[in-house]
Amino acid sequence: MRTILEAAQALRNRRITSAELTRQSLNHIAKSQPELNAFITVCEEHAVRQAAERDRELAAGADRGPLHGIPIALKDVFETRGIRTTCGSLLFRDHIPERDAAVAERVAAAGAVLVGKTNMHELAYGTSSSNPHFGAVHNPWDTSRVPGGSSGGSGAAVAAGLCYMAMGSDTGGSIRIPAAFCGTVGLKPTYGRVSRYGVMPLDFTLDHMGPLTRSVRDAAIVLQALAGHDPRDHTSSTHRVAKYLPAAKIALKGIRIGVPENFYFERCEGGIAGLVLQMAQQGAGLGARLVEVRVPDIAGLNAVSRAILLAEASACMEPHLDRRDQFGADVLFLLDQGRLLAATDYVQAQRLRRLYQIEFARLFEHIDVLLTPTTPNRAPGIGQTTLTIGGESEDARLAATRFVRGINVLGLPALSLPCGLVEGLPVSAQLIGRAFEEALILRVGAALEDATASTGLPRPL
Amino acid sequence: MRTILEAAQALRNRRITSAELTRQSLNHIAKSQPELNAFITVCEEHAVRQAAERDRELAAGADRGPLHGIPIALKDVFETRGIRTTCGSLLFRDHIPERDAAVAERVAAAGAVLVGKTNMHELAYGTSSSNPHFGAVHNPWDTSRVPGGSSGGSGAAVAAGLCYMAMGSDTGGSIRIPAAFCGTVGLKPTYGRVSRYGVMPLDFTLDHMGPLTRSVRDAAIVLQALAGHDPRDHTSSTHRVAKYLPAAKIALKGIRIGVPENFYFERCEGGIAGLVLQMAQQGAGLGARLVEVRVPDIAGLNAVSRAILLAEASACMEPHLDRRDQFGADVLFLLDQGRLLAATDYVQAQRLRRLYQIEFARLFEHIDVLLTPTTPNRAPGIGQTTLTIGGESEDARLAATRFVRGINVLGLPALSLPCGLVEGLPVSAQLIGRAFEEALILRVGAALEDATASTGLPRPL
Repeated sequence: MRTILEAAQALRNRRITSAELTRQSLNHIAKSQPELNAFITVCEEHAVRQAAERDRELAAGADRGPLHGIPIALKDVFETRGIRTTCGSLLFRDHIPERDAAVAERVAAAGAVLVGKTNMHELAYGTSSSNPHFGAVHNPWDTSRVPGGSSGGSGAAVAAGLCYMAMGSDTGGSIRIPAAFCGTVGLKPTYGRVSRYGVMPLDFTLDHMGPLTRSVRDAAIVLQALAGHDPRDHTSSTHRVAKYLPAAKIALKGIRIGVPENFYFERCEGGIAGLVLQMAQQGAGLGARLVEVRVPDIAGLNAVSRAILLAEASACMEPHLDRRDQFGADVLFLLDQGRLLAATDYVQAQRLRRLYQIEFARLFEHIDVLLTPTTPNRAPGIGQTTLTIGGESEDARLAATRFVRGINVLGLPALSLPCGLVEGLPVSAQLIGRAFEEALILRVGAALEDATASTGLPRPL
Repeated sequence: MRTILEAAQALRNRRITSAELTRQSLNHIAKSQPELNAFITVCEEHAVRQAAERDRELAAGADRGPLHGIPIALKDVFETRGIRTTCGSLLFRDHIPERDAAVAERVAAAGAVLVGKTNMHELAYGTSSSNPHFGAVHNPWDTSRVPGGSSGGSGAAVAAGLCYMAMGSDTGGSIRIPAAFCGTVGLKPTYGRVSRYGVMPLDFTLDHMGPLTRSVRDAAIVLQALAGHDPRDHTSSTHRVAKYLPAAKIALKGIRIGVPENFYFERCEGGIAGLVLQMAQQGAGLGARLVEVRVPDIAGLNAVSRAILLAEASACMEPHLDRRDQFGADVLFLLDQGRLLAATDYVQAQRLRRLYQIEFARLFEHIDVLLTPTTPNRAPGIGQTTLTIGGESEDARLAATRFVRGINVLGLPALSLPCGLVEGLPVSAQLIGRAFEEALILRVGAALEDATASTGLPRPL
């Protein structure tokens, strides 16, 4: 069984129990760990106990919905009561939270079984392809390559079939990049849609929480469990929650898919633009109208992302900055840079942010979703710091974030979904929507996924 | 006639014409100018033409409402098409705008007659009691004293009866302080309630536009003309506009007036706390319930104001900062300070801002309005930089802003209204309300004004 929906069906047909699914998951994790290192903490006892309870409930007719009994993982930024939460950092090496993050609470309430906490970039901020304290995560498609970050453990775990869903956090692409590099689906919801209560903050105005899954419909199921106002998170939205699960058969008649004529398709590794544009054509085949659009200056938007990221991350970490030996060199470098940024630069970045939001709102008057590649490249090698695209050398991390990090500045929802393989490595498309229109990008994404049968991507492990 | 309401009645009874009112206003201005210096620009020709048109309309039965034909002034931050708008700065000494600020547009559409542009602190930011380019404004109650800033010309003009209303802008108290020092009413509406289109920005997140008038009901009339969404101002709110004009007879049954037991009454010049608390008792006499409350740490809130103000003002002025000789020394000093502020400090200030907003929201669960003195002191002398309150020496500008500038950080509406005289100088109370509850503070304010007959304050000129 590849997806939550399939596993949920099997659980209800009594073809399998949550205890069995969970045991499989724990076994896969244990077996994969030396090769992938996707987890920082595995909570076997907790998972076995939860699964048994979920089985008892199902047997008694108490059904919590599609996540009931499904093994899932959380990136190690989500606090879990009684289960170590490190944030990939020495600072929190021994941190045993007394509370559950809202996300942990909500997936548990929906019946999911937590098998462990996934590895990640240090503080979700490190630029190194290897966490200096917990080691590198390896891409299941090619273990010499990175899974992408910062939610790399979540990407590897879902791609390798170690669990059915793993939560990520996304400040500048950290859900969508590992989703793309690992060939999974990744959803960054609208800013404020999913509570950040109990998540170690990195950037107050850029952080988003969302799932990595093996299908678009699975992402919709998870969002349904997560979405909604949480008074404990002051940035949590009161916007009404929609029905997210797309129908079994989807037409795209009347949907306008924006296809950028500038920036996004200009400088990609060979084969990537073609696969994404092919997906656009499949959308047209389902009745969507393709609209060529000029997007605002994304390079400028990315610069805004950088200024806001540097300042807010350093402000977040300020209480810990006297413990310099606790940080990896890459994180310390960024934190020091952030401390030197002028307040006026940050203010100007926030002003520009507003203008870009207005420009994008205008763009979305002419289209319903925007289709782009998620990344201009496939997963680079572990330790590889630069790559060459179109003859130009580029910092590997900046390349990977080029198409995604600006979207965090806008706060818009974005879905990454696989659209094929180039030389054996997955390539993904990004669907960007209007604020709180997750249902629409999920619907379009599911239709494109059905059409390209991308759920049929071979499972690497 | 003291108020807009009285003048409006007289206009409709044909006891006077707009042309006559306007001529009176222009004569008063001309006569007062050597002594008060309340205006930077008087637009006589424009005013005479507008008044004649308004008279023709009224004669033809076309009535624009209570502001129809009433002489008013605008602080010289509001752009006026074809009429010089200096912002009290050499930078804009010869700036003749091609557009009207939204406020100028709306008061004109409501029929008001613009007689001139009032003097102000340089760029609404100077700390000197004398504008280095346009001279000091003098307080009509005692011309050796300041009218308060930065909307000092507006305060002096309204108090001296030079016009019936003058618009101010308020970033850290700049409407309420001159209102208090000059014995007029001053209203700072909720952040986003009144459009800032066409106003020279000082601080994106702290600037508010509002009227200075000679009665609370007059302030309500002006707010009615000004309130409402403006798509040209990206911070303009879409919150519904209420009916602001209080009834002729007001009871306060059921209204909870919060009276702070900490901070606001702790360190005031003699006589001020007593007058404000006496006003609270008058509220109780009208049926209101007085609730003793502890307010959050206002000194901390004021520090937040300072960090945000410094950073945003310097960011706003950045394009002009190469022209150092165009600024007064006090403004340049603040702008230079702002440039040295770290982005992380600004970010922390914004985080604290959110926490204070939450603390105030909790406070307002127990009360409907908060009553405080507007300033801990009466108008100081021109050139006076320090004052002594309760045996402690204090910077005069910081003292004047002590009770008001934090409220800009919160974005809450606040009304300043006179509650009496101490040794011949006016003293005012501040009524703070929940966001977008201007109607309530105006209602309470009008009831207190009726009870204390503070509209009966003698007119100084």
